[in-house]
Amino acid sequence: MRVSIVQMQVVEEKVKNIAHAWALTEQAAKNGADIVVLPEMFPCFYENAAFLENAEEAGGMIWQALSDMARDNGVYLIGGTFPEREGDRLYNTCFVFDREGRQIARHRKTHLFDVDVQGGQHFKESDTFTPGKDITVFDTEFGRLGLCVCFDMRFPELARIMALEGAKAVFVPAAFNMTTGPLHWEVMFRSRAVDNQLFTVGCAPARDENGPYVSYGNSLAVDPWGKVLCRADAGEEVLTAELALSEVEQTRMQLPLIPARREDLYILKRK
Amino acid sequence: MRVSIVQMQVVEEKVKNIAHAWALTEQAAKNGADIVVLPEMFPCFYENAAFLENAEEAGGMIWQALSDMARDNGVYLIGGTFPEREGDRLYNTCFVFDREGRQIARHRKTHLFDVDVQGGQHFKESDTFTPGKDITVFDTEFGRLGLCVCFDMRFPELARIMALEGAKAVFVPAAFNMTTGPLHWEVMFRSRAVDNQLFTVGCAPARDENGPYVSYGNSLAVDPWGKVLCRADAGEEVLTAELALSEVEQTRMQLPLIPARREDLYILKRK
Repeated sequence: MRVSIVQMQVVEEKVKNIAHAWALTEQAAKNGADIVVLPEMFPCFYENAAFLENAEEAGGMIWQALSDMARDNGVYLIGGTFPEREGDRLYNTCFVFDREGRQIARHRKTHLFDVDVQGGQHFKESDTFTPGKDITVFDTEFGRLGLCVCFDMRFPELARIMALEGAKAVFVPAAFNMTTGPLHWEVMFRSRAVDNQLFTVGCAPARDENGPYVSYGNSLAVDPWGKVLCRADAGEEVLTAELALSEVEQTRMQLPLIPARREDLYILKRK
Repeated sequence: MRVSIVQMQVVEEKVKNIAHAWALTEQAAKNGADIVVLPEMFPCFYENAAFLENAEEAGGMIWQALSDMARDNGVYLIGGTFPEREGDRLYNTCFVFDREGRQIARHRKTHLFDVDVQGGQHFKESDTFTPGKDITVFDTEFGRLGLCVCFDMRFPELARIMALEGAKAVFVPAAFNMTTGPLHWEVMFRSRAVDNQLFTVGCAPARDENGPYVSYGNSLAVDPWGKVLCRADAGEEVLTAELALSEVEQTRMQLPLIPARREDLYILKRK
């Protein structure tokens, strides 16, 4: 399963971003990608005003472009996120399309990012968005995969539940910042991979020092032993990684963590 | 709260190990330690035959020595682990004593270490030990602390439950090996600290290349932001770290993870 992780530079204009994502997806497909991943909020700047301005419904222009990108290039597309409008609500939503351009999954960010670091980052996503209420796994020709968005990945409960439900890799469109990125980004993707013995993939926008939100970048893929398979720097880059999903079972045979869980002592499950 | 982490060299003879632990605890207390931590299986080699040979009951010689060490030096002592016999069962048990030498906590390792890495580590702890059935927190003059043993820490459910029950630091006598240590040791202690916004402390035996089980060493303390406060190398070393427990609340104020958990979507609790 060849995965291309598109750490693209996001600019202010929606149409430019979509065209750019399209070109990079095309390039990834030419390089043999089975799955292409776009970053969180790839069509607009990461700020509440831009979310409001660029919001669209499922089935709208962005959604349709993603579907066409997947079909025209014959790839699975994990379409980053865009501000999804439904009625008078906005969600930070990732749609996934199969090789024929059919939507096969939708994840609305369930944990919204509200932070106030002294001398660092201040952001309140819940001013604008409504949180989703689903834990999301979906099936492909390669097996079952998991999906969440950025801040969701901070909660070990979510990745664990996805693993227990059969996910062999968890894909995470995300955008950490320059406060939390250096401290927490890699350790989070590595620990979720190690604890659950699956692959993790994070896809962030490229860093723009002059943008309203400075993304940490550092998109990456991690294997079930916690080894970083590939990792971007700050700038625009398309990473390609081969995820050998059979390693999930091999790792679990050698170090049986999942069956060693003490379900007689604690309980973790979907509510 | 000044913590001394005793990464001691373990030899074959039980009495020598106890005397050595005593001397290092005394030294730590002279350096102002409030809490002294010993490694997993500090009184004997880490192998099933040695566990059987050196097993003792609570209240026996090892237990009494630990109690005396705590009282004589006026420190809290997280007494590593020893093979604890109760009836015809053995447990891998950590006892904790207060400054007066009173036992204030007991944790029997709940997740036993059974591993079979191709070309790497093979060990089956469950051949010898019975698993414990408690999740352990205890109270001190500094606040509530959590306790588990080595392989227990691999399960994010356990640290999360301790955090939800008020633990501000989690202490872990442990002994990773040369396969899992380099890959997983630091990322585990850092991720549990970051996810739960508390301090984590790991105390391992010093490495003995000629022993039956080669410990990774690398004892460490990590703060609630995931920063490594101190970390040993492979050899014998007593680390000292100041854990400012007020940083737990400060970190949680700035990055409110615990209250952002979606208890309407998933449930995690003691059974």
